Amino acid sequence: MQQPSIPKGTRDFSPEEMANRNYIFDTIKRVFQLFGFRQIETPAVENLSTLMGKYGEEGDKLLFKILNSGDFTSAVDAADWDSKNSNKLTTKIAEKGLRYDLTVPFARYVVQHRDQITFPFKRFQIQPVWRADRPQKGRYREFYQCDADVVGSDSLLNEVELLQMVDDVFHRLKIKVTIKLNNRKILSGIAQIIGAEEKITDITVAIDKLDKIGLENVNAEMISKGIEQTAINQLQPILLLKGDNHEKLEQLKSVLANSTVGMNGITELETIFKWIEELPLYNSIELDLTLARGLNYYTGAIIEVKANDVQIGSISGGGRYDNLTGVFGLNNVSGVGVSFGADRIYDVLQRLNAFPETASENTSVLFLNFGEKEQSRAMSLLHRVRQSGINAEIYPESAKIKKQMTYANQKNIPWVVILGENEMNQGVVTVKNMINGEQRTVPPEEVIQCFI
Amino acid sequence: MQQPSIPKGTRDFSPEEMANRNYIFDTIKRVFQLFGFRQIETPAVENLSTLMGKYGEEGDKLLFKILNSGDFTSAVDAADWDSKNSNKLTTKIAEKGLRYDLTVPFARYVVQHRDQITFPFKRFQIQPVWRADRPQKGRYREFYQCDADVVGSDSLLNEVELLQMVDDVFHRLKIKVTIKLNNRKILSGIAQIIGAEEKITDITVAIDKLDKIGLENVNAEMISKGIEQTAINQLQPILLLKGDNHEKLEQLKSVLANSTVGMNGITELETIFKWIEELPLYNSIELDLTLARGLNYYTGAIIEVKANDVQIGSISGGGRYDNLTGVFGLNNVSGVGVSFGADRIYDVLQRLNAFPETASENTSVLFLNFGEKEQSRAMSLLHRVRQSGINAEIYPESAKIKKQMTYANQKNIPWVVILGENEMNQGVVTVKNMINGEQRTVPPEEVIQCFI
Repeated sequence: MQQPSIPKGTRDFSPEEMANRNYIFDTIKRVFQLFGFRQIETPAVENLSTLMGKYGEEGDKLLFKILNSGDFTSAVDAADWDSKNSNKLTTKIAEKGLRYDLTVPFARYVVQHRDQITFPFKRFQIQPVWRADRPQKGRYREFYQCDADVVGSDSLLNEVELLQMVDDVFHRLKIKVTIKLNNRKILSGIAQIIGAEEKITDITVAIDKLDKIGLENVNAEMISKGIEQTAINQLQPILLLKGDNHEKLEQLKSVLANSTVGMNGITELETIFKWIEELPLYNSIELDLTLARGLNYYTGAIIEVKANDVQIGSISGGGRYDNLTGVFGLNNVSGVGVSFGADRIYDVLQRLNAFPETASENTSVLFLNFGEKEQSRAMSLLHRVRQSGINAEIYPESAKIKKQMTYANQKNIPWVVILGENEMNQGVVTVKNMINGEQRTVPPEEVIQCFI
Repeated sequence: MQQPSIPKGTRDFSPEEMANRNYIFDTIKRVFQLFGFRQIETPAVENLSTLMGKYGEEGDKLLFKILNSGDFTSAVDAADWDSKNSNKLTTKIAEKGLRYDLTVPFARYVVQHRDQITFPFKRFQIQPVWRADRPQKGRYREFYQCDADVVGSDSLLNEVELLQMVDDVFHRLKIKVTIKLNNRKILSGIAQIIGAEEKITDITVAIDKLDKIGLENVNAEMISKGIEQTAINQLQPILLLKGDNHEKLEQLKSVLANSTVGMNGITELETIFKWIEELPLYNSIELDLTLARGLNYYTGAIIEVKANDVQIGSISGGGRYDNLTGVFGLNNVSGVGVSFGADRIYDVLQRLNAFPETASENTSVLFLNFGEKEQSRAMSLLHRVRQSGINAEIYPESAKIKKQMTYANQKNIPWVVILGENEMNQGVVTVKNMINGEQRTVPPEEVIQCFI
């Protein structure tokens, strides 16, 4: 027999995995809603014209493209066909593709439906995305993203609420985290001050490695990128910043005094810290200048979340982007958002053994099946158990009792109801606790009480 | 400005639509779980070798195929390339496709993971599927299916429980339905008795039209399909069956007395009716011989659900298929399941105006924003409101009050909290009911009580 399989980088999720995944998604969704975010969904399949050119040249290659239906070759002229050039042919034979993230479809959504949307628009979206990346441990070709964004408001209160929301999600998931915060304007200010504005990407990429490769190697890397030694010297106090968030900001102020954009970044961070410090948070928020993610699109706050007790990349992140919808022709719509990495959060919870023990999605009660006469009595009791909101089932056949008990064990069903001939005759029901093995015999009307 | 768009047959779902859709999905999911079904998910992207040949020739054409990544032309030899034959080339340049339904991926899942599965396996799955159908009203290229199936048990108790489950779902959704039931074996028996076994498809297709085109046209159609007049005569009592389910079965018994398969079908239906009649049902179940859906794969029970108060196609259906996994080499695994059509159910609820009024996903409370000083007080009260489980938000900017109130109205937020300078000075909070316009001024610690 040939073993069927699924494409590399994709996954099946078993009932146990789904219960755990739903625990994560439901927790995130609940907090999103508490904060006034509302769900939308966009199609998995978008026009390639919507997706192409939005993720850089590399991103274009990583898009999954859908072959046009029907006689797709007929739209290709002879010269193009004969070239056998895959790159060139792609756009002729594929008009649609699978979404690569939730941000571009969201921007498309905002522009397309702008007349129906009430701004500021607080939306969340929990859907899979697809990337033709090389699959490797922890990296998949099909995976879920969980994004919440506010568009149409420049207020820093949005950043504050997003930070609060991140804090709340991880508190509920019982994951201790450090929320790291930076501001793109400060990075721009730094580049400006040291006179290497065009090198900002190189500088931030180098700074980003500070934790991993150390100060000396970061400096060496900057030299290799052609950054002047004088500029690197000026950078040193920034790389060596010490103290709490306010002390760091004070030190930065003196370094960035001559950069308007840099000082704006500091003011923004000061405001955010001031406001958030008035709120009760479960986790700490740290200014971290090495944070340089999403440099190509973030224009203000940059947020990243690391688990304190598990070594793993960031499990959530986000920031402000000033021109979300410009690429679709609608300018001056600012957005700010956060995204949760469900797969990494899953790994963290697994390593911490922090998934809830009693998955509410599981069956709580199995009625054993003793044959047609008893089954009839069992079915009516089963109906009442379900009506009281308890997940319950009956073994569909009057198989050997051992087999039925094994079924209950393998499915981790905590209660078994025995309604055999003896019980029928005595008008009672036996309830067995599968965890401690205890049995009780009770009148039928008291059965439901046993499970509560 | 160019208006961005999405591919034909796909849809965006707004927050309002999502709240309604989630109401449907959550209701179905809750009932699935009550009956002991557990969720799995399979990837959207399957190997084409898994999908091709499972849905007939027409189905193969309707599969969305994903262009191989990278230099896809290099795998094609010159002769094939020069043929420019789209059909032939498809399999060379596309190895993966989007799932077309949830049944084939489920069969693949069962075979692939059979060593980890506890049988009977009761699984449900709620995920989108894709079909390159011509889009038209009510037919989409991307849409959700909601399937529940039991595999690995021949017991008719499964059919009974599925019928009960269907009944419960529509009761909770407040849609009155008629559940129609048939059995493929009876259809086979009919064909056998009238000596037209090879014509069973033609006969059932014709019978299926009885409601629409009437007896005379059905008879004419059967003649045009080459069915003998004597056979058609024998069919007449079956087409004219009258009475309740038991009376119909009694009449059928005399017609099918000489067909073993037909009598088996009758026995199965009798058992199902007997068992289900012992249970309290909200809707009626009717034997309906014109039910011939899924004739190519159903081998036993055939189920179809029609809304009583809305003219629309079936909103749920299912049946038993005796060899679900045979196509992947694992024989003798019987399955039985039902599927709910979320899009049609949505239409029915909309036409009946039966969506719940208070969408639990919406924001319940908006805090107006009066500027930084008041905002600080509001934020700490807002935090407590959220902690008590109430969806709440603050307008992110101190915009004109009229604008903020309009925002609340447009988002259908039922409560607005006013914490302006006056309220600050008096140590109180004003709560406005946006539905009836009433205002109350209360101490901050009593605010939460206002929303309950």
